[in-house]
Amino acid sequence: MQFASDNWAGASPRVLSAIAAGAAGFAPSYGRDDASAALGEAFSALFEREVAFVLTATGTAANALGLAALCPPDRVVLAHEEAHIVCDEVGAVEFFTHGARLVPIAGPQGKLTEQDVRTALARLTGPLSRGEAPGALSLTQATECGTVYRVEEVAALAALAREAGLAVHMDGARFANAVASLGCRPADITWRAGVDVLSLGGTKNGAMMAEAVIFFDPARAAGLDWRRKRGGHVVSKARLIASQFLALLEEGHWLDLARHANSMASRLAAGLAAMGFRVPWPAEANEVFPILPRAVAARLKANGAIFHSWPIAGLSEAEVPAEDEVLVRLVTSFATTPAEVERFLGIVSSE
Amino acid sequence: MQFASDNWAGASPRVLSAIAAGAAGFAPSYGRDDASAALGEAFSALFEREVAFVLTATGTAANALGLAALCPPDRVVLAHEEAHIVCDEVGAVEFFTHGARLVPIAGPQGKLTEQDVRTALARLTGPLSRGEAPGALSLTQATECGTVYRVEEVAALAALAREAGLAVHMDGARFANAVASLGCRPADITWRAGVDVLSLGGTKNGAMMAEAVIFFDPARAAGLDWRRKRGGHVVSKARLIASQFLALLEEGHWLDLARHANSMASRLAAGLAAMGFRVPWPAEANEVFPILPRAVAARLKANGAIFHSWPIAGLSEAEVPAEDEVLVRLVTSFATTPAEVERFLGIVSSE
Amino acid sequence: MQFASDNWAGASPRVLSAIAAGAAGFAPSYGRDDASAALGEAFSALFEREVAFVLTATGTAANALGLAALCPPDRVVLAHEEAHIVCDEVGAVEFFTHGARLVPIAGPQGKLTEQDVRTALARLTGPLSRGEAPGALSLTQATECGTVYRVEEVAALAALAREAGLAVHMDGARFANAVASLGCRPADITWRAGVDVLSLGGTKNGAMMAEAVIFFDPARAAGLDWRRKRGGHVVSKARLIASQFLALLEEGHWLDLARHANSMASRLAAGLAAMGFRVPWPAEANEVFPILPRAVAARLKANGAIFHSWPIAGLSEAEVPAEDEVLVRLVTSFATTPAEVERFLGIVSSE
Amino acid sequence: MQFASDNWAGASPRVLSAIAAGAAGFAPSYGRDDASAALGEAFSALFEREVAFVLTATGTAANALGLAALCPPDRVVLAHEEAHIVCDEVGAVEFFTHGARLVPIAGPQGKLTEQDVRTALARLTGPLSRGEAPGALSLTQATECGTVYRVEEVAALAALAREAGLAVHMDGARFANAVASLGCRPADITWRAGVDVLSLGGTKNGAMMAEAVIFFDPARAAGLDWRRKRGGHVVSKARLIASQFLALLEEGHWLDLARHANSMASRLAAGLAAMGFRVPWPAEANEVFPILPRAVAARLKANGAIFHSWPIAGLSEAEVPAEDEVLVRLVTSFATTPAEVERFLGIVSSE
Repeated sequence: MQFASDNWAGASPRVLSAIAAGAAGFAPSYGRDDASAALGEAFSALFEREVAFVLTATGTAANALGLAALCPPDRVVLAHEEAHIVCDEVGAVEFFTHGARLVPIAGPQGKLTEQDVRTALARLTGPLSRGEAPGALSLTQATECGTVYRVEEVAALAALAREAGLAVHMDGARFANAVASLGCRPADITWRAGVDVLSLGGTKNGAMMAEAVIFFDPARAAGLDWRRKRGGHVVSKARLIASQFLALLEEGHWLDLARHANSMASRLAAGLAAMGFRVPWPAEANEVFPILPRAVAARLKANGAIFHSWPIAGLSEAEVPAEDEVLVRLVTSFATTPAEVERFLGIVSSE
Repeated sequence: MQFASDNWAGASPRVLSAIAAGAAGFAPSYGRDDASAALGEAFSALFEREVAFVLTATGTAANALGLAALCPPDRVVLAHEEAHIVCDEVGAVEFFTHGARLVPIAGPQGKLTEQDVRTALARLTGPLSRGEAPGALSLTQATECGTVYRVEEVAALAALAREAGLAVHMDGARFANAVASLGCRPADITWRAGVDVLSLGGTKNGAMMAEAVIFFDPARAAGLDWRRKRGGHVVSKARLIASQFLALLEEGHWLDLARHANSMASRLAAGLAAMGFRVPWPAEANEVFPILPRAVAARLKANGAIFHSWPIAGLSEAEVPAEDEVLVRLVTSFATTPAEVERFLGIVSSE
Repeated sequence: MQFASDNWAGASPRVLSAIAAGAAGFAPSYGRDDASAALGEAFSALFEREVAFVLTATGTAANALGLAALCPPDRVVLAHEEAHIVCDEVGAVEFFTHGARLVPIAGPQGKLTEQDVRTALARLTGPLSRGEAPGALSLTQATECGTVYRVEEVAALAALAREAGLAVHMDGARFANAVASLGCRPADITWRAGVDVLSLGGTKNGAMMAEAVIFFDPARAAGLDWRRKRGGHVVSKARLIASQFLALLEEGHWLDLARHANSMASRLAAGLAAMGFRVPWPAEANEVFPILPRAVAARLKANGAIFHSWPIAGLSEAEVPAEDEVLVRLVTSFATTPAEVERFLGIVSSE
Repeated sequence: MQFASDNWAGASPRVLSAIAAGAAGFAPSYGRDDASAALGEAFSALFEREVAFVLTATGTAANALGLAALCPPDRVVLAHEEAHIVCDEVGAVEFFTHGARLVPIAGPQGKLTEQDVRTALARLTGPLSRGEAPGALSLTQATECGTVYRVEEVAALAALAREAGLAVHMDGARFANAVASLGCRPADITWRAGVDVLSLGGTKNGAMMAEAVIFFDPARAAGLDWRRKRGGHVVSKARLIASQFLALLEEGHWLDLARHANSMASRLAAGLAAMGFRVPWPAEANEVFPILPRAVAARLKANGAIFHSWPIAGLSEAEVPAEDEVLVRLVTSFATTPAEVERFLGIVSSE
């Protein structure tokens, strides 16, 4: 019963076949190969416009490079206080932007609200601003709380940002889960809603290691080459990352994988709620955050379930776990099986 | 006829099988998996002592992280003026060390000499030193000129460094080719000769993307975690890099691959020399640098050969190409075939 | 009627005489001169223990260098959200520490409370911490709201910090005003209360440009030399900064100047309060923050008063200015005259 | 007999009077004061065109900020291998540019030659360039060897740079001495010869601490504000630096001071040459580099002369000191007296 993280899964068989096929013969290195060219076309088709992109091996690299292309070193990046770039990347954005500072903003269910962004902007741009100007807004889609921004929510936040002169970045480490959840076109939740740059995650979706920074305005990618090189992020056999993405995009495989992961999470959430456990944030993607009695959590672990406890920051007072309770995170993936889910629920309900 | 670079090859079949096998089931992410643990043991066995290591997807990342662990930001790194860290990484070492400066040193055949290192050290450490102190010496093995340092050469340079308080780094993007060429034990040319940290390249050797930083004193690796994270170099599904290295190390596969590449280069060099062409640097690993008439180079390209021209820096006046000549670089790999080599030589000799 | 800032004043006549006297003859540069040596003794006497110090021309440099000596690049600095290092130095701390991130904390009257620091520490160090560890706590004394930490407040916060392994920095741009206000010994509010490093401001106190970083543990200053040099903060004719501090410290001149400034602020605050205006934060040093009707503020400006409006962040809802009101900041200095103060109050009360 | 450095002198009486006068009354901080405005006009008059400028307290800050305005982080700065930015500033340029690398170039008498710059450019910009592009050329005027570039030399080097797309920086820590030596107009040796940005030194010329970065194209200064702030180089009481420069520029005081210093150096050089000592570099500004018998150097020191030995890098083989000789540096300043010079020469000639 593996619910620790979607990066504990391996890789989809179709991805593995694509790697093996892609490794045949010789090809130019550093992205000047045919698979990379094909991927450019596939991305442009997927997003219904010409895009530029760079491939990386990690999501942190994708976020940091993407934001470095958007935000000059003397500006700040607004992001949710639970965002991965704030909590888990130990200064990567500051490092790659050469100094742009992160301004964390609180918000319910892992989401930024218009009101909170407006307040933050007012402070940074009003007549009383003291030296720091905002440069970019970063949204996480799906969020770190397993929720998903609606198209109109992204559009409203991006409009606010644009009005104030900010570029908009989307951390899409779990973009596939968000799109599968919304059932929208990828273009609708990105550039049509005002997003300039997307970190598109392939790894959690089912690749071995494949992340992409997608620039909806190709001109934004200019000047990124030296940052990638200096950062050690120019993979020589780039075709082997490109092949993974091509396999994911072929015949909608990426959305099939994400839909499966999402449905496993929905089943978990529904099962737990039916048993009366609180699940403070709706399980809209592939993560479920129930509040469990500590005894139940212990029983699960004793029976081999693997999952993490989670910080309660962002819970309203009414939702905060009692002394004998704990907030936990359950993450599903393309590799999660219905049997595992049922076994987990069975252990919870047993007594 | 692919002689552009050893990173134009794909991956060895054994490596591809290992990736597929490694992707089965779930495993802890970020290097806390069984394959990573097994690799730790394999590296320690290979180097005949306990080592620490981190895995990366690029050689630039390995070099920059390794040197960041060795050299504080207020020191300088001595390296050959043709070293990859000097010519091809656009400031990665300075970026990851937070400011340690590179001091390029000239030297024949891509190698540093004791005399030149001594002169550089004298200037930086003598009574007239003006603020900069040396922190590390970086050697490239095999060198960017296709030559290989002898064990006693490394030992002498490392002794010089150690005496002056410097740590010693080895850029081993083509370490396998060097070891295959020397026929020595990996330990002999590294820690036993005074090397503290090795960038061990798997990608050019036959992996898809697999590089490692090997710390012969595990304590040196302390404090590297945040640098990797901040740099975006913590690969989540680390087991899939570890699997590649395990496949390379199994049954000496890495040396078999390197020996093949080296023998293809030797055949090229011997063939060209027999036809009377100058090859200023001995082809000791998997690179050959002949001086060809421009007409011959053009004929080769017209017939489909792929290779690069090369800067003549480091050639003695007697060796410098004439107006109608050009210095070119031919790189072989595990995937180079004898037939390709013979066809190349045949085109050269035809008229 | 100059209340814009204490850095709009010139320099005390005693300081100017000291500069002129200090400029006579030749002396070693870069701090190896007699005045700098004498200053070391004067600082040690002032703080009742041996201290190390470096001199700078700006307070931002003093803060950034001091924190760089305390906080490694992979840690964060806790500070009040209104602190100068957070609001006004555009990333200087991150720049000089090579990446340590600032974590702003709210708190009433410009002060950090034990409870808020405890909460911040819990989040960063508990079992749910995600990669960032705290490295230093920075306190501003006097605060940006014109208030002053009591000795026991500093001691309690510093004890909290020390327990969690943090070093403690004090931004003392207006340290003289705080000491004059408290009537305590400088040692009591610094190292005896747990402060490791003090940015000691001379400029606002009455110097031309003279700031010092005081290390209560001289070992902490080791390794700062290259940071100063790389940052362009090694003043060649250092004796001319040292002379300014010597003049300030002679016969308690610094405290005389600060006491005068403080008394001018007290008179302003008392006068305004007597007329019924709200002054939300007690004027404990040389700054007063009254809420004035916009009409009054306009009348003052029309009559030549110079002062700034101020952000209301940190005011409780009850204190927030009404539509027709504005929060303003009045800063006094050694050069403020009682006549100016009375004239200002007279204009306020006129109608 | 003080010949250690021109920064061992104090400040000219006229500068000291200007500081005292400038400190009267209140004035806006951070450069929005009348003296700073007047200085803008004075600089524009001096250079015969509208210029922008920023003031700093150190020459390292001026160099680093000026180059940061000219050279993006992915480019390199070409400079003489003996330049202050290469040998004495421990990475300040790299720090403030966020990574632009220095490429040191050798050249006789402390000067770059067209041929050597051409060779360096060819390597960085030719078809074989490997990732690094040149961004700026930095010239030191007067040089670190006490020589002075002729107008036509600067023009030729700047033309080379401009053709290759580089901006041109001049480190003028001793600019006054160079102008006094050449007898040219300041405009002739700067923008009319192709210089974009000048670090104009006041400190060694006779100020207490006053350096300026002069932008001959004011647009170049855009975006420098945050760099200054982040670097801790925004002096609050800027009028007190401006006053120093105003005093220097009034009635040609700066050139009077420089001419005096130069004439003291000429006298030293002529005296030593007349006694048969080698002076390998012509003493064209305020520095003399004679080769003295060690016995003579020791006798001078025993009699109270203060001066430094100097690295011999850059001397031709014929010039290199013998075993019993030493190359020394003698620096004169506005405060050097003819009596000191004669006494020095007297001790040399005594036996």
